[in-house]
Amino acid sequence: MTISPNSSPDGFMPTPHPNPSLQVTVDHKLKQVEATVLTPKRGEVLVHVKATGVCGSDIHFWKEGRIGSLVVEGDCILGHEAAGVVVKCGEGVENLTPGDRVAIEPGVPCNSCFLCQEGRYNLCEEVQFIGVYPCHGTLQRYKVHPAKWLHKLPDTISFSEGALLEPLSVVLQALRVAQLSLGRGAVICGAGPIGLIALAAARASGAHPLVITDLEPKRLVFAKEFVPTCLTYLADVSLSPEGNAREIRRLFGSHEYSAPPTVLECTGVESSVCTAAFTARRGGTVVVIGVGKPTLNNLPFMHLSLAEIDLRFINRYRDTWPAGISCLSGGILDLKKLVSHVFPLEKAAEGLKLASDPRNGSIKVQIMDESEVIFL
Amino acid sequence: MTISPNSSPDGFMPTPHPNPSLQVTVDHKLKQVEATVLTPKRGEVLVHVKATGVCGSDIHFWKEGRIGSLVVEGDCILGHEAAGVVVKCGEGVENLTPGDRVAIEPGVPCNSCFLCQEGRYNLCEEVQFIGVYPCHGTLQRYKVHPAKWLHKLPDTISFSEGALLEPLSVVLQALRVAQLSLGRGAVICGAGPIGLIALAAARASGAHPLVITDLEPKRLVFAKEFVPTCLTYLADVSLSPEGNAREIRRLFGSHEYSAPPTVLECTGVESSVCTAAFTARRGGTVVVIGVGKPTLNNLPFMHLSLAEIDLRFINRYRDTWPAGISCLSGGILDLKKLVSHVFPLEKAAEGLKLASDPRNGSIKVQIMDESEVIFL
Amino acid sequence: MTISPNSSPDGFMPTPHPNPSLQVTVDHKLKQVEATVLTPKRGEVLVHVKATGVCGSDIHFWKEGRIGSLVVEGDCILGHEAAGVVVKCGEGVENLTPGDRVAIEPGVPCNSCFLCQEGRYNLCEEVQFIGVYPCHGTLQRYKVHPAKWLHKLPDTISFSEGALLEPLSVVLQALRVAQLSLGRGAVICGAGPIGLIALAAARASGAHPLVITDLEPKRLVFAKEFVPTCLTYLADVSLSPEGNAREIRRLFGSHEYSAPPTVLECTGVESSVCTAAFTARRGGTVVVIGVGKPTLNNLPFMHLSLAEIDLRFINRYRDTWPAGISCLSGGILDLKKLVSHVFPLEKAAEGLKLASDPRNGSIKVQIMDESEVIFL
Amino acid sequence: MTISPNSSPDGFMPTPHPNPSLQVTVDHKLKQVEATVLTPKRGEVLVHVKATGVCGSDIHFWKEGRIGSLVVEGDCILGHEAAGVVVKCGEGVENLTPGDRVAIEPGVPCNSCFLCQEGRYNLCEEVQFIGVYPCHGTLQRYKVHPAKWLHKLPDTISFSEGALLEPLSVVLQALRVAQLSLGRGAVICGAGPIGLIALAAARASGAHPLVITDLEPKRLVFAKEFVPTCLTYLADVSLSPEGNAREIRRLFGSHEYSAPPTVLECTGVESSVCTAAFTARRGGTVVVIGVGKPTLNNLPFMHLSLAEIDLRFINRYRDTWPAGISCLSGGILDLKKLVSHVFPLEKAAEGLKLASDPRNGSIKVQIMDESEVIFL
Repeated sequence: MTISPNSSPDGFMPTPHPNPSLQVTVDHKLKQVEATVLTPKRGEVLVHVKATGVCGSDIHFWKEGRIGSLVVEGDCILGHEAAGVVVKCGEGVENLTPGDRVAIEPGVPCNSCFLCQEGRYNLCEEVQFIGVYPCHGTLQRYKVHPAKWLHKLPDTISFSEGALLEPLSVVLQALRVAQLSLGRGAVICGAGPIGLIALAAARASGAHPLVITDLEPKRLVFAKEFVPTCLTYLADVSLSPEGNAREIRRLFGSHEYSAPPTVLECTGVESSVCTAAFTARRGGTVVVIGVGKPTLNNLPFMHLSLAEIDLRFINRYRDTWPAGISCLSGGILDLKKLVSHVFPLEKAAEGLKLASDPRNGSIKVQIMDESEVIFL
Repeated sequence: MTISPNSSPDGFMPTPHPNPSLQVTVDHKLKQVEATVLTPKRGEVLVHVKATGVCGSDIHFWKEGRIGSLVVEGDCILGHEAAGVVVKCGEGVENLTPGDRVAIEPGVPCNSCFLCQEGRYNLCEEVQFIGVYPCHGTLQRYKVHPAKWLHKLPDTISFSEGALLEPLSVVLQALRVAQLSLGRGAVICGAGPIGLIALAAARASGAHPLVITDLEPKRLVFAKEFVPTCLTYLADVSLSPEGNAREIRRLFGSHEYSAPPTVLECTGVESSVCTAAFTARRGGTVVVIGVGKPTLNNLPFMHLSLAEIDLRFINRYRDTWPAGISCLSGGILDLKKLVSHVFPLEKAAEGLKLASDPRNGSIKVQIMDESEVIFL
Repeated sequence: MTISPNSSPDGFMPTPHPNPSLQVTVDHKLKQVEATVLTPKRGEVLVHVKATGVCGSDIHFWKEGRIGSLVVEGDCILGHEAAGVVVKCGEGVENLTPGDRVAIEPGVPCNSCFLCQEGRYNLCEEVQFIGVYPCHGTLQRYKVHPAKWLHKLPDTISFSEGALLEPLSVVLQALRVAQLSLGRGAVICGAGPIGLIALAAARASGAHPLVITDLEPKRLVFAKEFVPTCLTYLADVSLSPEGNAREIRRLFGSHEYSAPPTVLECTGVESSVCTAAFTARRGGTVVVIGVGKPTLNNLPFMHLSLAEIDLRFINRYRDTWPAGISCLSGGILDLKKLVSHVFPLEKAAEGLKLASDPRNGSIKVQIMDESEVIFL
Repeated sequence: MTISPNSSPDGFMPTPHPNPSLQVTVDHKLKQVEATVLTPKRGEVLVHVKATGVCGSDIHFWKEGRIGSLVVEGDCILGHEAAGVVVKCGEGVENLTPGDRVAIEPGVPCNSCFLCQEGRYNLCEEVQFIGVYPCHGTLQRYKVHPAKWLHKLPDTISFSEGALLEPLSVVLQALRVAQLSLGRGAVICGAGPIGLIALAAARASGAHPLVITDLEPKRLVFAKEFVPTCLTYLADVSLSPEGNAREIRRLFGSHEYSAPPTVLECTGVESSVCTAAFTARRGGTVVVIGVGKPTLNNLPFMHLSLAEIDLRFINRYRDTWPAGISCLSGGILDLKKLVSHVFPLEKAAEGLKLASDPRNGSIKVQIMDESEVIFL
């Protein structure tokens, strides 16, 4: 697979429009450079990106240069949680017109493999995911993207919220697997952005009681403000996973029946995954949302067997933007408070720096471009 | 199966405690009579019933003398939506003590047939359902009931709310089948008590948008006040089911995609069931909650085939009280507004009369007994 | 939607190759005429059709001129159960080469609507289904078809078997919904081709005991020869659906537990659907495979409610050819005996006449073209 | 919970009937001793055990004195895969009479916890499982057991086959989770008794192609004779799990689509579990049947995430005997060949010794008691 940058190699805009971008380099640097503005081809659209959220994976690509088999082998514009305004449509685009406000679904699957055909396009092996080398991302002003993978936003949803639809999509995919239900409990492991969205989404799904765990007291304070009816549990590093699980279960009441049928694991960290396995009630399910190291040790295998607890995994999302938009526009979910810091596009690197430092208590950093929308 | 009245034939309370009751007779009369107070046997509990909701089936037994194969063949105390206080425990009761506030799960299954064994106890053919001849119901002060089928109420749940756990259970059973999800639409057919609870439960599950339908404008006005974010649709009797369905779908937007994946049919009426069948999106599900006549005509069979729409049926509920209690105590659902009228136990017949008259706009009539709790 | 005949309007083969075809006309006639040979366009393949099975729907289009909303409005080549040999590939076809033996999946979905995208392409509203006006079918020698919807056949599968993959696909779609399991019973209503394939597939899935029903003794004799371990039940027209159901259940033993959890309804006839509803055990499922009239009366609505029996519907199939090919090539299923009559392509009309006469006991009539394969 | 040996402490048979038994001791010895014959109490039945299969867990209790938290703390009669003849019924037993041939379901759940109530009685924490200290097992002539957990055998099922219903039940429980389907592939890891039964059951469910793996060539030779249409794969200890998985997948064909959707892991060994994780196709499921050490290392966590592969666990079985009996009596499964060695009850210890030695190639060792059935 050879993919040219920005996926529209053979044409770029004739007139000079500034297109500031933030790129990661092979040698772990961030650089703010002017990027080419491409012309949308058949079925494509040029989007003026107005908001991009910074994700842990952006930090990873910058600091480590890779996530598993995905390796930064050349300059690559980062960013994949984004929303903006359509400024130009390529041929054959019927569902959008310039001026439409859109959220970007960043993974573009092949649309022809059997996984795409059976509707599990999130598992497509030929997916082109923007912001992952070699596909340029949304930390630039002008991004070309297939119209099919843009979702119209109603006026009631801001660009900032539109950009949050991507992490919300991860959570919606997990909930598809988790099948929370009214009045049944759930535990969310990890109070980072995904864990917090999972918390809000679990509350909006009627799951109750809800417990969220973390190692960091400040994050739990935020979680409690964000979803006041939740309970919080500060993981005790001096306890084993089984010990922490015992404490978490205690919050649900004394009875096995009260133990949570569902645990949403959002950290990908071994101790948390193992705690999750001991926390779910007999016959329950642990949905693994967080990804971590390639392999995991100390999985409580016999416990999972004896208690018939399933480990279910998700990879990104499929068909989640429409439901996410419906949630935000219908007032089912309010995620606005998650945006703790905002930087202009020209200072995107500062945003990543802030997001990469765990000490400053940022939740979700977003890069906003307030420059005027020009229909090119 | 011969079941003696109140299920504890061989003993009754030695001291005279007034036990007013409302009984239906074979000749379609209601009579307020003093009933025997029974002694709880092994595993049983004597409950001072504090609240009983009037259900459509109570009216049916009174007016028609039967529902399908269930026939009133003798005097029978009505009532099955109830909550109260434990006043005496039989031998071997460990989970309850006098003074405990409890909600009553009215169906007592055999606990030995294969359906009980596989967890589908709501389908048990030997179920003894109180308030259905020959099992006396809760429209009396003192009701003996197996401890296993009583659910402790926290102080935050009133008796009135406790009695609402029974219709809520019907809805929770339907939601188990319906699998509503965050940001996906649903239609509720019928704005009676079950429909209204279904509406609130669908909202609490994060389904959106929600449309509720009825033939009666006043009920829709109430629905809109009850769940302000819902949309209402007044069924047009001059239209065919297909025509009404077209109008309902229009409320969801123009696209087949926006059509509701789930329809909760709460009326049992033919035109509504057929409308439901045309309303669900391709590949969707109609959950039939309402029961009506023995047979149904004009089912749009070919449409259901071509659109792969499933008709799924429920019968009462299983394992729903704990989740219902969690919903009410956790603030996930607030059903208090549904109680439109309250009558004292001694005037229970008036309550049924009011509930039986569709013109007066009652939603849920409850019979409350404010008399002092005495531990017999 | 305007679709030109054979879907490749703008080019046809320059050299004269005879292409006999069987067409249905607006005035309910069959005519054997020479049809145009088209040139495969990009992504398309020209197939020499070697075998086409005659389906009840072909007879319907001929005799009635319509099935529901599908109307014969002009001459149309019939046939959609087919297999053949690739004789020419259009541009961009990579998965096939001339000489490949293939089975034809006859429905060509739009590949862009949300139903296609979520993997339920069988529900696509823009599907072009060959053999249904205005899309020409396979009762001709040379058929152009998209390469994507052709499935390579191993040498161990004959063209005749390859053509049976289409009705087998209907059954596989039903089994996806039905979830038969080892050692649990099932009933198949109707011993026509679909019912017989369902019977064989249920046996191959390990379901046991199996009962197949029909009104016609000869069909049941055939069923018993086809799957010797099945039981047969001759429907008694003097009995009600409930009465027939009682007799069918008796074959499973006296206990409700033994009653069949699954009924595969393959007739679409009201009395059979209603019998199916009474036959399934409490908590069971009726999968409706057969389509019949637009509406259905006398559905035992209250029984379905009280017994929590789901009615699940299917429309054609999706992603079934690979599994079907695996079944036939792996010896999991042997359907060869179903082909009761074979006619050459030039006498296809005679084949349809025979298939349309219920008295002659035909099961599956196939039209075979034994003419030499020429790579055009 | 204090449980007296054989669960009927307060009465034993007055007349001397020899009751030879095989007991395991705290100090890892086997002893053949005469055991007390108990009188069946209310709801219980006395069974003359005719056949007991030796299970790996019997060997474990003998050699290691424990499996996880289950510890041999005193003399205990081993054996839990058994069938026999009813020789005496306690009071209130209605479903059985002396002379009935029965298979024993060895786990007796509490029938009152919420897990029992919701039908997942295999997860009951108060289960009394015979052959596990302190509950005596079936390696004795006369065993008292609750009538509810005995399953009548038709004459067509031998006692030897009746004893195989227990390991078959483990497999049926796994298939309930695995949802094999006609013409879709599966891999079985491990060709021990459970793996071989899983292989036969997968074949009887129509799954195809089937690959079975093992480290031991002789076992694979047996597997191939047992289910001739399967493919075998000899695990290569010089390869990584990923390497072995690649080789296994190659047997299914080159395409990801052909990769097996289901892997049934029957060994509980780390390398095999990890191989299973790499073998399942994207979006597939690994059903963990084998139990091993308390914890598992090197689980390919990121792979499971990226490929959305679920790990599902089972613990024993629920509601599987009736289906198992139906399979054996209906000819759906033939497991007789699995019994490689038979010993008389008096030489049960020799049977265990043989079964414990991996070098002798035994598959399933059974202990048969041919002594006359006397109705005590």
